[in-house]
Amino acid sequence: MKLLITGGGGFVGARLARTLLQRGQLDGKKIETLVLTDQVASPADLRADPRVQDRTGPLMAQCEALRSEPFDGVFHLASAVSGECELDFDLGMRSNLDSTRALLEALRAAGQASGKPSKLVFSSSVAVFGPDAALPMPSPVADDTLPAPQSSYGIQKLICEHLISDFTRKGFIDGRAARLMTVSVRPGRPNGAASSFFSGILREPLAGVESICPVDASVSHPLASPGKTVEGLIAVYEASREAFLGRLGMNLPSINVRVSDMLDALEEVAGSAVRARVKFVRDDRIAGMVANWPAGATAKRAARLGLHPDASFADIIRQYIADCKATPGGEAALKGLA
Amino acid sequence: MKLLITGGGGFVGARLARTLLQRGQLDGKKIETLVLTDQVASPADLRADPRVQDRTGPLMAQCEALRSEPFDGVFHLASAVSGECELDFDLGMRSNLDSTRALLEALRAAGQASGKPSKLVFSSSVAVFGPDAALPMPSPVADDTLPAPQSSYGIQKLICEHLISDFTRKGFIDGRAARLMTVSVRPGRPNGAASSFFSGILREPLAGVESICPVDASVSHPLASPGKTVEGLIAVYEASREAFLGRLGMNLPSINVRVSDMLDALEEVAGSAVRARVKFVRDDRIAGMVANWPAGATAKRAARLGLHPDASFADIIRQYIADCKATPGGEAALKGLA
Repeated sequence: MKLLITGGGGFVGARLARTLLQRGQLDGKKIETLVLTDQVASPADLRADPRVQDRTGPLMAQCEALRSEPFDGVFHLASAVSGECELDFDLGMRSNLDSTRALLEALRAAGQASGKPSKLVFSSSVAVFGPDAALPMPSPVADDTLPAPQSSYGIQKLICEHLISDFTRKGFIDGRAARLMTVSVRPGRPNGAASSFFSGILREPLAGVESICPVDASVSHPLASPGKTVEGLIAVYEASREAFLGRLGMNLPSINVRVSDMLDALEEVAGSAVRARVKFVRDDRIAGMVANWPAGATAKRAARLGLHPDASFADIIRQYIADCKATPGGEAALKGLA
Repeated sequence: MKLLITGGGGFVGARLARTLLQRGQLDGKKIETLVLTDQVASPADLRADPRVQDRTGPLMAQCEALRSEPFDGVFHLASAVSGECELDFDLGMRSNLDSTRALLEALRAAGQASGKPSKLVFSSSVAVFGPDAALPMPSPVADDTLPAPQSSYGIQKLICEHLISDFTRKGFIDGRAARLMTVSVRPGRPNGAASSFFSGILREPLAGVESICPVDASVSHPLASPGKTVEGLIAVYEASREAFLGRLGMNLPSINVRVSDMLDALEEVAGSAVRARVKFVRDDRIAGMVANWPAGATAKRAARLGLHPDASFADIIRQYIADCKATPGGEAALKGLA
């Protein structure tokens, strides 16, 4: 089978690619070709795999060619992140809405030519939820909570959910929108996402670097490990349409924790000296955005697919440490550990 | 003040224009100029008013010029209807989604140049609601029912609601989405809307013509008279942001009636011979679409604005008859009355 991962150079995309290549199959079919598109080149280990084709450049510019290139399946992860969409409205509309529309139209054209609609998994986001004056946000938010996004990023993700729903209803694709919870611990450097600190307050102290938490310790949020996130994307792909249950977006599982719980887990796993590297300095822009995010989420539809949250936040930190150790040169990210 | 009505050549648009011109003011400000855009020319009585500018042509083609023409307020009613969007997917995307986006961008540009964002009332639709495998549709649907549109028309309306919400949050416009209930009795000829028969089964018998009802007499649906619909659009325009309550779409009031109730009312107002002109011949395409529409709706937010449903369906029929009598040549539409 031939697969496409958009955003394949990003952290989740690359991890998904590695997992798929290691499995060798998806939905019972052998993976022959895995195309990765992103603005940046994929990691070298992926490019070294003979099954991988790396295509660097904006997704929008690639969509015209995709109209005549049929794929069995697509994981559409490419996205501008929440912080940058809030700072640059037009960038978000172009990167998240227009590019998705162009991709859907390309898949429709390719599917109509080949007579076989592509399967598509779309990475939507917990950011579709928010409070509105007409409707206080429930806590936790559920699959069927009315989305009221309070950011351009959330609006664009929700609009894409509905486009995918209609392209699916029309038979142009077989699409499924999975709402990713905030992924933690992300490796590497802070990114433009307003949620970046949910990784930074673990990652930086473990690397021996001070980290600033821009929100109060009492802030609660639904989080998932990279491993659980990738597991969720694959399970959503492999689900039958009946098991996916309808065409509305589906929450992926999350562990709902406060910042203080995260730091307690950090202390449990790495000691009090590591925890002490986190300082609290409120950032009103970030704190204001986070205040409009869900404090927790449930994922009943995902549970029907056998998907469950991480067992504990300490487990998530241990997964991160194990990942660093397994990565060549990754020990540098753990310099802060005694 | 300077106002724009898109879809100003349509039935609701022209009725809104007449009502506004008769009032002479909106939101306490004198109406100096009323621009009507539509694919077809506005009715002659409107074009004869010195305040009216009639601009015929596709909305999309007019949006570039609108970027440098500031409006105090806009009623955005232009839309391809449900039936044609279902038959021609690309037409619906272009007419309902792309045109709305272009209009919003034009208003944003004009508002940024003038320093004053336009007020905008968008005619969304009860078609945003529907049943999904993950979520049976409640009956009646409320303002905060999770929309799960089962038609391209409904998807496009819902996407526009969210675009308008975000353009409003960003301060580009002051937008409000009002979900119109199915308008009955529409005068004139059947249109491409799948809901067209909700007017036809009253209008045709009153004109002395046989009418086919394509669904069972037990089908229930939320309906509103043209007068109540126009009243709702104006009240939503004049509401303060606080009174409108948030940025999510708002249901306009409806009377929730079965087809049999409608025909009982027709008999009450016009006699049994008129009612007997309605024949039942099921149309699977129409009946299938209608089965996914709400059987009824509530409108609590609209009630806070002082908006209430028509008192009875017989009242709606009497309004239609009075309107026909008040229209030059309109008596022809009542040839079926004894």
